Amino acid sequence: MKKLAREVAIIGVGMHKFGKFMDKGLKDLTRVAVWNAIDDAGIAANQIETAYFANVLAGLITGQECIRGHIFLRDAGFEGIPIVNVEGACASGSIALREAMIAVGSGLYDVALAVGAEKLYLDDTARSIQAMSTNTDIEFMGQLGFQFTGSYSMILRKYMKQYGWTQEQFAKVASKNKHNGSLNPMAQYQKPMSAEDVLNSRVIAWPLTLYMCSTMADGAAAAIVCAKEVAHKISNRMPITIAASYLRSGEVTGEDDGQVRVAHDAYQMAGLSPEDVEVAEVHDAMAPGEMFRVEKLGFCKAEEVGRLVDEEYFTLNGKLPVNTSGGLAARGHPIGATGLAQIAEVVWQMRGEAGPRQVSGRNSPYPKVGLTQNSGGYVEGSPATVSVTILKS
Amino acid sequence: MKKLAREVAIIGVGMHKFGKFMDKGLKDLTRVAVWNAIDDAGIAANQIETAYFANVLAGLITGQECIRGHIFLRDAGFEGIPIVNVEGACASGSIALREAMIAVGSGLYDVALAVGAEKLYLDDTARSIQAMSTNTDIEFMGQLGFQFTGSYSMILRKYMKQYGWTQEQFAKVASKNKHNGSLNPMAQYQKPMSAEDVLNSRVIAWPLTLYMCSTMADGAAAAIVCAKEVAHKISNRMPITIAASYLRSGEVTGEDDGQVRVAHDAYQMAGLSPEDVEVAEVHDAMAPGEMFRVEKLGFCKAEEVGRLVDEEYFTLNGKLPVNTSGGLAARGHPIGATGLAQIAEVVWQMRGEAGPRQVSGRNSPYPKVGLTQNSGGYVEGSPATVSVTILKS
Repeated sequence: MKKLAREVAIIGVGMHKFGKFMDKGLKDLTRVAVWNAIDDAGIAANQIETAYFANVLAGLITGQECIRGHIFLRDAGFEGIPIVNVEGACASGSIALREAMIAVGSGLYDVALAVGAEKLYLDDTARSIQAMSTNTDIEFMGQLGFQFTGSYSMILRKYMKQYGWTQEQFAKVASKNKHNGSLNPMAQYQKPMSAEDVLNSRVIAWPLTLYMCSTMADGAAAAIVCAKEVAHKISNRMPITIAASYLRSGEVTGEDDGQVRVAHDAYQMAGLSPEDVEVAEVHDAMAPGEMFRVEKLGFCKAEEVGRLVDEEYFTLNGKLPVNTSGGLAARGHPIGATGLAQIAEVVWQMRGEAGPRQVSGRNSPYPKVGLTQNSGGYVEGSPATVSVTILKS
Repeated sequence: MKKLAREVAIIGVGMHKFGKFMDKGLKDLTRVAVWNAIDDAGIAANQIETAYFANVLAGLITGQECIRGHIFLRDAGFEGIPIVNVEGACASGSIALREAMIAVGSGLYDVALAVGAEKLYLDDTARSIQAMSTNTDIEFMGQLGFQFTGSYSMILRKYMKQYGWTQEQFAKVASKNKHNGSLNPMAQYQKPMSAEDVLNSRVIAWPLTLYMCSTMADGAAAAIVCAKEVAHKISNRMPITIAASYLRSGEVTGEDDGQVRVAHDAYQMAGLSPEDVEVAEVHDAMAPGEMFRVEKLGFCKAEEVGRLVDEEYFTLNGKLPVNTSGGLAARGHPIGATGLAQIAEVVWQMRGEAGPRQVSGRNSPYPKVGLTQNSGGYVEGSPATVSVTILKS
């Protein structure tokens, strides 16, 4: 397998809280996340040599179709450096991190910024929902008004039939993530909720009920990466190495197995296996989606997932804590920011800075290996793109 | 100056003719450009390991806001590989090439595809024009209805006053480029036109007349890059080395000098100087814009440009042929495709494949060093982003 010319590490992460901020625009959200990441790294802003900016829907929602990163980062004080806008639907934030990693790994830059920001809440909710439906081929599925609740619902029904997963288990996952979110000051929803309350909320697309689903959100997240060889010279933070960041686009054929392959490629790139992972953030735009993501990532077999949920395997105190941040449904899902919020959470866990939701490492106080999985868009039967990032300390 | 871990070369280029194609969509345009590039390189499509896709306005014009490259390249037969959508207004195509270069230069991939495609012609012209106005901060200049004709007009007036440039010289540049375009089967406008006819066409924004200005266009362009060390193993084409591809974002202060600095950085990265350049494509959304671009690139001083135009210095038989393709105003300017069309033209010139518009090298049959300059968006007094790419054979 081909490798980057040199290793890349994360030295700072930052977020703007996810939520509904009717009085804030993308400049406000971006500025806070970026400067929090700079403060976290303890570097000077002018040490950042290049930036990758992820946003998905500003063109349709705010009207800023072009040069988004140039406008928003300029407002945050950045000029002169190369800025590249990147997009891959809900996986955009992970793509920004990956491109920053490649830019630094190539030798061309020592320090790069990855930032994702999204503004979904507007006065005009219909406009936002319409915009979100462009995450598939608009000439086909986009015209059907097909939304992610529909695709998740169809996949979950298949698993229920094939592997005996139950709606009660889906509610347990959502309740776990609501609990985690209640311990995360950056989360959109910080109210714990029992599995029973999740189950009794109104049906959105059976088996999904209201409190299993992510909603609209505003927010931003950022990470600063640098060449591992210079990390200790420019920052006092413990560098978190990007052991792998792998990306695939959707497969035309087959059983959604691009998700399995991208995980396989990432493990290979990192020289690690699923058993090594001690904490993971996975893409659960609908909380029960976590159940098929953990299977695709090789953490367990599909027929085991239901039992493991019942045994609290994925809780903060479980064998493999998943979505300690609350995941997309509780932390919130401002589309272009999600991938980098996942990264921020895993970095905080690995540095022992996750406060009341901190998990333990298996052979060390804090996890030494963490993973994020981030999925974007939808084409016939599979995600349009999937990213898996593996971090190690 | 920091460098890529390894050298990267272009082994294939392809285009879909620029023009008005009411019966074609972005899938059609993309497919033709990509497969022409693949045929040109003489590789198999499955040798392409990753792709960067540039498009600017599909979200507002066709409605396909998300995962554009995933949708359009999937239609062209690509699945599984990492695809990243990149954007930087009119410089987007150059950014796609640069990111492909970095991905290969990093060691992570051997072969990468860069493609830019744009569809501007619709039944609804007002919608297309409105979309194009988002290439600046929509909260400020975007609200003014400020278009590029206005910004070019203001800059040219300044140069007229300061350096004695004349409207007749602007018409000569436009006429030269119309002539070049008439020899380019890929050009949108293939009709030669005298300077007098250009001058007598109706005024758009003084000193700009109708035939000095680029119009709307549909089109696509693509390039295949690979690690130079493997080029001869996978392709029979003479590899054209990317000696530099440099990018800056707009400066908040100063006299537009980011354009000078990015050129300086590119020459430094390439280990070359302006005197080494034998053919250049520069960003002339309005044909006379060529006159200030050649100054920013260090080819001559501002006070010399008018005289050099009169002396036919930049014509096909001149000392430094500029915009041999016809440039943006004659070849056409389908925004996200332009940067890669510039690259295609310079590659064709350096390989001696430019047909009736072929130029000579100074010490060799064909040019050994070529340059493209591509500018995108507009912020207070300067381009939002500028790219300079230097090719050598």
